Amino acid sequence: MSVQAIAWSPSGAVRIVDQRALPETRIERDLESAEAVADAIRTLQLRGAPLIGIAAAMGLVAGTRDLRTAPREAFLARVEELVRLLAATRPTAVNLRWALDRMVRVAAQTPGPGAALWERLQSEASAIWEEDRAMCRRIGAAGLPLVPDGATVLTHCNAGALATGGIGTALAPIYLAHDAGRRVHVFVGETRPVLQGSRLTAWELTHAGIACTVIADGVAGSLMRRAAVDVVIVGADRIAANGDFANKIGTYSLAVLARHHGVPFYCAAPSSTIDTALPDGDGIPIEQRPVEELTTLAGRLVAPAAAAALNPAFDVTPARFVTGFVTDRGIEQPPFAARR
Amino acid sequence: MSVQAIAWSPSGAVRIVDQRALPETRIERDLESAEAVADAIRTLQLRGAPLIGIAAAMGLVAGTRDLRTAPREAFLARVEELVRLLAATRPTAVNLRWALDRMVRVAAQTPGPGAALWERLQSEASAIWEEDRAMCRRIGAAGLPLVPDGATVLTHCNAGALATGGIGTALAPIYLAHDAGRRVHVFVGETRPVLQGSRLTAWELTHAGIACTVIADGVAGSLMRRAAVDVVIVGADRIAANGDFANKIGTYSLAVLARHHGVPFYCAAPSSTIDTALPDGDGIPIEQRPVEELTTLAGRLVAPAAAAALNPAFDVTPARFVTGFVTDRGIEQPPFAARR
Repeated sequence: MSVQAIAWSPSGAVRIVDQRALPETRIERDLESAEAVADAIRTLQLRGAPLIGIAAAMGLVAGTRDLRTAPREAFLARVEELVRLLAATRPTAVNLRWALDRMVRVAAQTPGPGAALWERLQSEASAIWEEDRAMCRRIGAAGLPLVPDGATVLTHCNAGALATGGIGTALAPIYLAHDAGRRVHVFVGETRPVLQGSRLTAWELTHAGIACTVIADGVAGSLMRRAAVDVVIVGADRIAANGDFANKIGTYSLAVLARHHGVPFYCAAPSSTIDTALPDGDGIPIEQRPVEELTTLAGRLVAPAAAAALNPAFDVTPARFVTGFVTDRGIEQPPFAARR
Repeated sequence: MSVQAIAWSPSGAVRIVDQRALPETRIERDLESAEAVADAIRTLQLRGAPLIGIAAAMGLVAGTRDLRTAPREAFLARVEELVRLLAATRPTAVNLRWALDRMVRVAAQTPGPGAALWERLQSEASAIWEEDRAMCRRIGAAGLPLVPDGATVLTHCNAGALATGGIGTALAPIYLAHDAGRRVHVFVGETRPVLQGSRLTAWELTHAGIACTVIADGVAGSLMRRAAVDVVIVGADRIAANGDFANKIGTYSLAVLARHHGVPFYCAAPSSTIDTALPDGDGIPIEQRPVEELTTLAGRLVAPAAAAALNPAFDVTPARFVTGFVTDRGIEQPPFAARR
């Protein structure tokens, strides 16, 4: 049984699992305002391209609860303000922008005062979440043949239930294979610097009873060399029209290693992650995170203060390294054309 | 000016810099017994293939100071006992075994009682240290052409002054280039799980005034992809006769990435690291370290207790990935024949 990363609280706040505290402690947090949601996204209380899109949409709803009596113009002005705030939290994932654009569009298209708009936004945010949950299952079904009985999968970062509204993207085929009674073993790259692999992926897999082994990121090459990996499945934060994709830093190295060792390499993502407006990966903005994520551990210095550090959150993997894209539409090959 | 990782204390103990405390604190520790040296090696208070060879030899001397009045047989019996203890501390580096074999040999060949043997051991340990210091400089001189003015070097783990009795192996050409007034920039892979890159290499480079940038290990691929790395230079813990070599986990991945991107990849090591008795890398024993190095940080759990973990300290890079071996004899190509 996979975990539930997001939900509405009874009072209409956004209820999340604070991912910073995992795996030591499971803390549920009710975010009452859009500002609180923006802060949670910025500080990685929740992360994962699909999940931050859902959270932003839900945050917009939570943050306009008090404006239900407002006139139309005041409501829309406030929505615009909050959308700017939420959109600015993280630059790389396209889902965030995509979800907010969708919210703005339906608000503009809905007639009536604040109350009507708010109702419409609420149902749209819930729809975005429900659709994501369904997309996760379709991704899982599409990727199920990649995970036969006895398979060993290598994954990176967290593209699981904690990154989505449902059972994840890269982990979705693994959950469905496990549900189908197949024996699966997952190598989980710890994913420095924030350790989403060891802290989150290993946590949600063991929580679901799926066997996994945590490794330092530098171990992947030697595992592939001794044929210990059947398939690599990773998520994506943004996929360009030509199939180049951004994902957690380290993904590109895994892609090169997989190619060198003849290991199939799949990218799993909902079709909302595909940004057909971008011709290729060169146009994907790469977020630079605070270097303290790298140079300190639990408040202690692990690099000398005088040393520089570089902390890109993502890298871009060219499409030619990808065996296939596992999406809610099946296993696809680029180029991707606009469908919306 | 590079740091001095090891020395004799005035009373004949082995004086080391406790590398576990870096970069936060510089702690000098006088190890009075061979047992204390063995413990220091086992717990990574000092590490680095050349340095642990030197430390073991010096520890043997420190640990037999009280036996100078002992008869020959008692002295030799104790030496044998301590050699077993010291040799068992870490399995992968050949230098440890090599240094201890050399100590045992000279003891056996020296006539006379304990006092004579002890004097001989002391001068041999000092010779091992002095030779290593000289070898480091010769490695530096051999590798100097690899680091022209303006060069950007990527290194992994720590193969510097803190890993040797002198100016290091992989870092030796960098120190000499810097001394020669060349502008050098070093990308330092942090080297999970124990972070010898960020904690030690970045510390000793900034200590010497050499510009460096710490990166997560997963960043190396994308740096090479954007041509930000001119050359990769790493150390070695053991080199087989055919040129396959063991080095810190993650080295093999860097070698594959360097090959893919056409970046020259050099392995720098003293010739004592070459184990001509081993035909190839398959015979190199790979130390498995405690998984807590990976699953805990500063005493806090970063992977769920239920998850397995795999923590090999080293991997093996096949010779075909190596552009050249930078040794005290020059830039060499395998196979390596026995010379001693």
